[in-house]
Amino acid sequence: MQVIKYPTEKDFETIVKRPQLNVSRLNATVAEVLNDVRNNGDEAVKRYEKEFDHVSLASLAVTQAELDEAETLVSQELKEALLLSYGNIAKFHAAQKFDGIKVKTAKGVTCWQKSIPIQKVGLYIPGGTAPLFSTVLMLAVPAKIAGCSEIVLCTPPNNREGKVHPAILLAARIAGVSKIYKAGGVQAIGAMAYGTETIPKVYKIFGPGNQYVMAAKQQVSLHDVAIDMPAGPSEVCVIADHTSNAEFVAADLLSQAEHGTDSQVILISVSEALLDSVQKEIRAQLCRLPRKEIAKKTLENSKFILVHNTDEAMALSNFYAPEHLIIATEDYEKLAEKVVNAGSVFLGKYTCESAGDYSSGTNHTLPTHGYALAYSGVNLDSFNRKVTFQHLDEQGIASIGHAVELMAVNEQLEAHANAIRIRINSLKK
Amino acid sequence: MQVIKYPTEKDFETIVKRPQLNVSRLNATVAEVLNDVRNNGDEAVKRYEKEFDHVSLASLAVTQAELDEAETLVSQELKEALLLSYGNIAKFHAAQKFDGIKVKTAKGVTCWQKSIPIQKVGLYIPGGTAPLFSTVLMLAVPAKIAGCSEIVLCTPPNNREGKVHPAILLAARIAGVSKIYKAGGVQAIGAMAYGTETIPKVYKIFGPGNQYVMAAKQQVSLHDVAIDMPAGPSEVCVIADHTSNAEFVAADLLSQAEHGTDSQVILISVSEALLDSVQKEIRAQLCRLPRKEIAKKTLENSKFILVHNTDEAMALSNFYAPEHLIIATEDYEKLAEKVVNAGSVFLGKYTCESAGDYSSGTNHTLPTHGYALAYSGVNLDSFNRKVTFQHLDEQGIASIGHAVELMAVNEQLEAHANAIRIRINSLKK
Repeated sequence: MQVIKYPTEKDFETIVKRPQLNVSRLNATVAEVLNDVRNNGDEAVKRYEKEFDHVSLASLAVTQAELDEAETLVSQELKEALLLSYGNIAKFHAAQKFDGIKVKTAKGVTCWQKSIPIQKVGLYIPGGTAPLFSTVLMLAVPAKIAGCSEIVLCTPPNNREGKVHPAILLAARIAGVSKIYKAGGVQAIGAMAYGTETIPKVYKIFGPGNQYVMAAKQQVSLHDVAIDMPAGPSEVCVIADHTSNAEFVAADLLSQAEHGTDSQVILISVSEALLDSVQKEIRAQLCRLPRKEIAKKTLENSKFILVHNTDEAMALSNFYAPEHLIIATEDYEKLAEKVVNAGSVFLGKYTCESAGDYSSGTNHTLPTHGYALAYSGVNLDSFNRKVTFQHLDEQGIASIGHAVELMAVNEQLEAHANAIRIRINSLKK
Repeated sequence: MQVIKYPTEKDFETIVKRPQLNVSRLNATVAEVLNDVRNNGDEAVKRYEKEFDHVSLASLAVTQAELDEAETLVSQELKEALLLSYGNIAKFHAAQKFDGIKVKTAKGVTCWQKSIPIQKVGLYIPGGTAPLFSTVLMLAVPAKIAGCSEIVLCTPPNNREGKVHPAILLAARIAGVSKIYKAGGVQAIGAMAYGTETIPKVYKIFGPGNQYVMAAKQQVSLHDVAIDMPAGPSEVCVIADHTSNAEFVAADLLSQAEHGTDSQVILISVSEALLDSVQKEIRAQLCRLPRKEIAKKTLENSKFILVHNTDEAMALSNFYAPEHLIIATEDYEKLAEKVVNAGSVFLGKYTCESAGDYSSGTNHTLPTHGYALAYSGVNLDSFNRKVTFQHLDEQGIASIGHAVELMAVNEQLEAHANAIRIRINSLKK
């Protein structure tokens, strides 16, 4: 880890510098696969599943029998944990429901917004050794609460048996998703963007993935479907002081560091003693971790920053715009008010990032790579559109008609002016 | 116009087919200009202003003197119209403010969302013969209400004098925007995406533009900044019945048709007589329009569709997902409830699209080209992010700690499990 003491604002740019993300070198390959899926549907998806996931699939759809079997393969204990998390995620996202109010903007003019679910959404869940069943809940629960009528889930099958990890299937069942397909990578994104004989086309695609999946999502988002947000490696920023628990802080930094060697880990402290003890704790905890090689490498690029006060710490954090921000200081309530740029914020010493990753109820699909400057994490809005409605009566024509006509004329849109003018005139008769 | 009688659902696909948008052929040129602006800042912007807008600019920033002068150049009548529209737009968007509620998802676990403005936003206003001062209000008013601390506006100067249209400057002043720069096209998008010596870098870019501007927004959105939404030609769908006023409907169709020959115009009626009289009315009104050549050409591609009932009309409209939907039927209230896919909806015979284009209070920056399937129009949310916060106390650890640990272990993220485990253990002592 790199220790930086008392940086000035001029140093901020260097401190927060993230590795350049560029998936454009993958673009040609990705475009080819997408095009193939667009033209050849199921056949292409199966061919790529064979090539990339080394599995021959007779059918892409997960069957009811497989769903039933999954239920028997997951331990009762994990099932209960899934149900508990499901409940909290559902509670938090249900509280985000929006009821538009009718606003009388002028005499005879009423305007309102109505939140309407996106009809067809696609959820992508990566495969690999670690099954991301928690992400199933994070995407499917708000989709269901929003009321999306078609929720499609694609996830690559297990290599040997051509089956999906049972915890992924169980999480999908708990969340109420039944259209589950065995497809991974670019071919899954293509299938949901264009539709195949088996996999329905959707209007918006959600979910994490590797660089190929990211590139595919970017490409289809230019023409064909919306996507949740651009993505990059996961990251955490922890703000600490002399009251912070070094053992907890070290564990939080390590939990980010185990994600992958491109993960970003930043600790900002107003206490030099805390910085020292966190470093000691990291060394102690590191050797006990199964993913210690990854975590060790990530931590080599991590930054430990000493600042004069918590305001400076917040300024640096806001400049960085972290995906996850843990505020473990005594004055966390005061600092929380000063957060401007972050994906999700964890307050106080007991609120570790993993609480939000799984069970607190907040969403863990969050903007990385500084995208928190302009993007929200996934939330109920992500599955809705706000459609505006307006109504004018005779009085409305009287109150805004002349302004509409005049502005249209001045924008040289005479037919626009005419549309209001003939209504104004009809009332003069 | 093409008249289609009683189509079946199978015909919907053909009826709503929009012209293919493909700006990728512009990509190389656009990338070159963007890169030049990124590397050479102001100098490059001025060079392109000379090349494309045929104007030599000593300085890119609009001066206070120019703002003051604009005020004297706009008629009092237009100023009052701008103020009236400003008031309605402000009222409607201020009513969209979001206050997150604290949700207790479990014992000792509290989660909430907070709406935080995007700090730096860029607004692009096209130039040309028709100055889009209304769009200044539509973008700047919600940006200001959201509380964005830096609002940058770029718009190309008038060719001969190197000045910006006074109504654009006045609208900006009314909305409270003071950072206005003379830059158009790709160079303006590049300047706001990367920043130059004069023009500040922003985090999200809003606003309409030609194909080059669209391509530039798409390109910068892949890496550098967020954008409001993808864009395409403007479009309207009108649903009418025997009670609709043919003169009004014809005027509404024409007001869309004058935008440009790529505009889409669709009329769906349950009354054949109404279809006939609208056609007659269009011929009568068309000859009086200054832009009649454009409107005539657009109408050649328009579709007039006869359906059995208003439910069928709504089904077709929802399939089309129009940017603007005018429901001019007797049962517009009932039909409004059935809208699933649209940008903005205009209800009843007096609510013409131009009312919403200028003064009703709703936003006129709306999803075109079927993007209404997945995107909202610009609204207060577009200038905010919803950041999530969470807090766990000792009870929170007790209520969700075990679930977090178990799920992390099952996702093979041992350090994630450890972060909660050491907190659980600390409470056992």
